[in-house]
Amino acid sequence: MKKEVAIGIDIGGTNTVIGVVDREGNLIAEAHTPTLTNTDIKNYLDVLTAKINETVFELNGDVEVKGIGIGAPSSNYYTGEIVGASNLGWGDVIPFVKLLQEHYDYPAIVLTNDANSAAVGELMYGGAKSMDNFIMLTLGTGVGSGIVINGKLVLGHDGFAGELGHVITDVNGRECGCGRKGCLETYASATGICRTVSELIATTKIPSDLRKVPSGNFTSKMIYDAAVKGDELALEAFELTGKMLGRAIADFVAFSSPEAVFLFGGLAQAGDYIFKPTKKYMEENMCFLYSDKVKLLPSELDGAKIAVLGASAVVWKELEK
Amino acid sequence: MKKEVAIGIDIGGTNTVIGVVDREGNLIAEAHTPTLTNTDIKNYLDVLTAKINETVFELNGDVEVKGIGIGAPSSNYYTGEIVGASNLGWGDVIPFVKLLQEHYDYPAIVLTNDANSAAVGELMYGGAKSMDNFIMLTLGTGVGSGIVINGKLVLGHDGFAGELGHVITDVNGRECGCGRKGCLETYASATGICRTVSELIATTKIPSDLRKVPSGNFTSKMIYDAAVKGDELALEAFELTGKMLGRAIADFVAFSSPEAVFLFGGLAQAGDYIFKPTKKYMEENMCFLYSDKVKLLPSELDGAKIAVLGASAVVWKELEK
Repeated sequence: MKKEVAIGIDIGGTNTVIGVVDREGNLIAEAHTPTLTNTDIKNYLDVLTAKINETVFELNGDVEVKGIGIGAPSSNYYTGEIVGASNLGWGDVIPFVKLLQEHYDYPAIVLTNDANSAAVGELMYGGAKSMDNFIMLTLGTGVGSGIVINGKLVLGHDGFAGELGHVITDVNGRECGCGRKGCLETYASATGICRTVSELIATTKIPSDLRKVPSGNFTSKMIYDAAVKGDELALEAFELTGKMLGRAIADFVAFSSPEAVFLFGGLAQAGDYIFKPTKKYMEENMCFLYSDKVKLLPSELDGAKIAVLGASAVVWKELEK
Repeated sequence: MKKEVAIGIDIGGTNTVIGVVDREGNLIAEAHTPTLTNTDIKNYLDVLTAKINETVFELNGDVEVKGIGIGAPSSNYYTGEIVGASNLGWGDVIPFVKLLQEHYDYPAIVLTNDANSAAVGELMYGGAKSMDNFIMLTLGTGVGSGIVINGKLVLGHDGFAGELGHVITDVNGRECGCGRKGCLETYASATGICRTVSELIATTKIPSDLRKVPSGNFTSKMIYDAAVKGDELALEAFELTGKMLGRAIADFVAFSSPEAVFLFGGLAQAGDYIFKPTKKYMEENMCFLYSDKVKLLPSELDGAKIAVLGASAVVWKELEK
């Protein structure tokens, strides 16, 4: 009997990863292709579909493809559209699912934003397997989120639910790319912690090797490495990042009272440096009803694979409907 | 054929209202009994069950009772317990459903907090009939909330989801009864607007008749009446209340992207005085993804009846499972 599989596609700003994944989350085949940006979307689709076909062909007919799940920025599950993803440069509204349907007639072709895919991946194959209520926060260049309530992904009325990177944590705070001020992602992302280091350099006299680096060259990895070496300013930057993130999570908890909050992405890889202060400020700021009830956990999925696993997982969820 | 009905019970700090309600939301009979507080819960249950029996008996066997729904403060649907409701004075943890089951063996006996009941009432009989995603905010002495996502009430991992009155809107803000500072309910409740008037009296020179009233005597109705007469300070108090509430709602929207947010309770009765500034600041502070998409609406249910209607509605939802 042929093995049933789903194809998971992770569309990043530079690369696209294609994974052929079985229902148990085993990655049977993997392929990569450049994400052709700033071009007619049809050029990219030609390359992408050729790569998909080649990858499936190489499995010698041992698999039966049940669907394609795509994780991409600014994506809407309901409409199947990628909306306003300026870094992809394909136009304002790309009917991605419709365009793929011209090539394939699989039972399920579904698009979700990348943080939502990550949440579904964690739900099906990771640390949230036994959970009905949790929140996944992806702390990368920005802050994304996927929220699961009553065992289902929260998409909201219009498909754009779960933009927790854009709750306002300080009304007089930092300028955000969205045009407002003080959004969580201006503090609790990889770029946010770089801004915090710049701020500490300006406002404190804490000694630090980071003062020798041009601020435009800061990376969260560099700040992590400094913290590991005991750099006081880097440690303080993690403390402040955890403070903003912990406070925000305390409010998220009052909304959906989740069993756990998962942290994922570049900044989450700092381990205790980010988890400890976040947990401390989360508990300090939480309403007593939830004290010591909500777990703060790292994602259990392999960082490099979570995107394609998650995208493929959305296919199985779709077929269950 | 006997008419199928559910009994809705609204336990307030002073009075308990009992309603016999059919599936369409018609209130067939209504009764009242004092809420016996600071006593052995058994005394109260004796009075309550006698009143329920009498009310049903008077319907001459024309009805078939399918269940009892109770709305009460600090109630947990999962455990059937009222937890830490200090104003009732029955003890820390009251297994209310279990105690009622000693008297009745109806197919469904369910307990939820009052704001959750109100949300279910709005969903079944009010303005949210056609909605799968909305938030109900009750602006009374405190701020309560009931959240519906994917057509279902959000209860969370532990049954305590939806305490939006306790998100922190100002980290250096007002002392809250929960022991923290700056919770939404210290601003956007009937008592919150009274505190805002006191603050404006202290910090501004805006002329107002309210300066002649001892602050301990302020009521939200009094502030509303002053606003209607054009009292500048009362109008400013509504503006500031709407500012805090609108900002908070903008963040709630980033969580669940609801079709609408309903306002209910004493403060919501101020109509445009509260809705206009709330809507303005909600839009001003909302992430562009949601601009002009989310309705801000008054509850469509009769204020006096929503609690029993909502409590009875939870019974039908339970039986649908």
